[in-house]
Amino acid sequence: MKILIVGAMGTLGTAVRHELEQSHEIITAGRKGADVTVDMSVPDSIIAMYDAVGKVDAVICTAGQAYFGPLEELTPERNEIAVLGKLKGQINLVLLGLDHVNDQGSFTLTTGIIMDSPIVGGISSAMAGGAIKAFVQSAAIEMPRGIRINNVSPNVLEESMDTYGPYFPGFEPIPARRAALAFRKSVEGAQTGQTYTVY
Amino acid sequence: MKILIVGAMGTLGTAVRHELEQSHEIITAGRKGADVTVDMSVPDSIIAMYDAVGKVDAVICTAGQAYFGPLEELTPERNEIAVLGKLKGQINLVLLGLDHVNDQGSFTLTTGIIMDSPIVGGISSAMAGGAIKAFVQSAAIEMPRGIRINNVSPNVLEESMDTYGPYFPGFEPIPARRAALAFRKSVEGAQTGQTYTVY
Repeated sequence: MKILIVGAMGTLGTAVRHELEQSHEIITAGRKGADVTVDMSVPDSIIAMYDAVGKVDAVICTAGQAYFGPLEELTPERNEIAVLGKLKGQINLVLLGLDHVNDQGSFTLTTGIIMDSPIVGGISSAMAGGAIKAFVQSAAIEMPRGIRINNVSPNVLEESMDTYGPYFPGFEPIPARRAALAFRKSVEGAQTGQTYTVY
Repeated sequence: MKILIVGAMGTLGTAVRHELEQSHEIITAGRKGADVTVDMSVPDSIIAMYDAVGKVDAVICTAGQAYFGPLEELTPERNEIAVLGKLKGQINLVLLGLDHVNDQGSFTLTTGIIMDSPIVGGISSAMAGGAIKAFVQSAAIEMPRGIRINNVSPNVLEESMDTYGPYFPGFEPIPARRAALAFRKSVEGAQTGQTYTVY
């Protein structure tokens, strides 16, 4: 399969790339250092990416910015980071990408454990995750041409503990390669509308 | 208690108002015909509303626009209606309202059954509902001064069947007064972070 990975140079994206590159043709996309440059918070940038890439069999998104910080510092402006990135960015990859995905293809988006098990400072990211989970479940029943859509909800990654560890006391970090398996399950399997939790 | 109901003139809001007005002081807010005019898709309008209303014990939101229509007609622009209204509108009522709610007060937002049980045409509204549910669960653990936050997720309302009935085949409509009970449970009870489903 020809697979487009948005956020392919990030921690999770790198693991997904390694998981899939043995058996698939991978096109990487991201803000820098990837085959195709894209800022998924900008719809025109998403359109340009799809125009550059052409048809694919699967679109994976492992990107999605969000502000981390306490409720009392969460302004509408700071919340907008997740709304533009993790939330609308991922949704627009689907809405603007439908015509670029082959029959029986798939979309796989990323959510995260904090939509199910909240942490202090994680409101905005959890909000975006909840939106994506519900979007995926709803979009799945309307996808044309046998196209499927799922999302992967990983626990905090071992590789990200230096940055995010203090936000996740008592959470059991997982290696990114475990989360990457769930993306393979979504791409090569036949399920749709699912949330694959890797907790 | 002094209770601000945003969307108080709508079908659900009217039922909530009737449920609570016997035992509380109600201030209605909405786009027209209410005590205070507010467009919750505009943060400055929310700020002006709170400045006009002063301190309250509870904020209820029963408003929240969303585009209803099939996936293949759901553009980023049409999805923005729910993002601005049902999603960011409700979240900003909380972020901008925290200082206007008394100690041990509460926020109660509205989601909806389609975030759990998807319907054709409901992607955008379901997405917003999922975001609000996750936001509520996360925000609850960080609320200051004993303030609580919950959301009510109603089934399709009997009173709305003329408009929305065709979208909800086989769903069992509920009278708005049943959903209104869940708002009382949220306001007068002691729970927080909850999703009250009225299905």
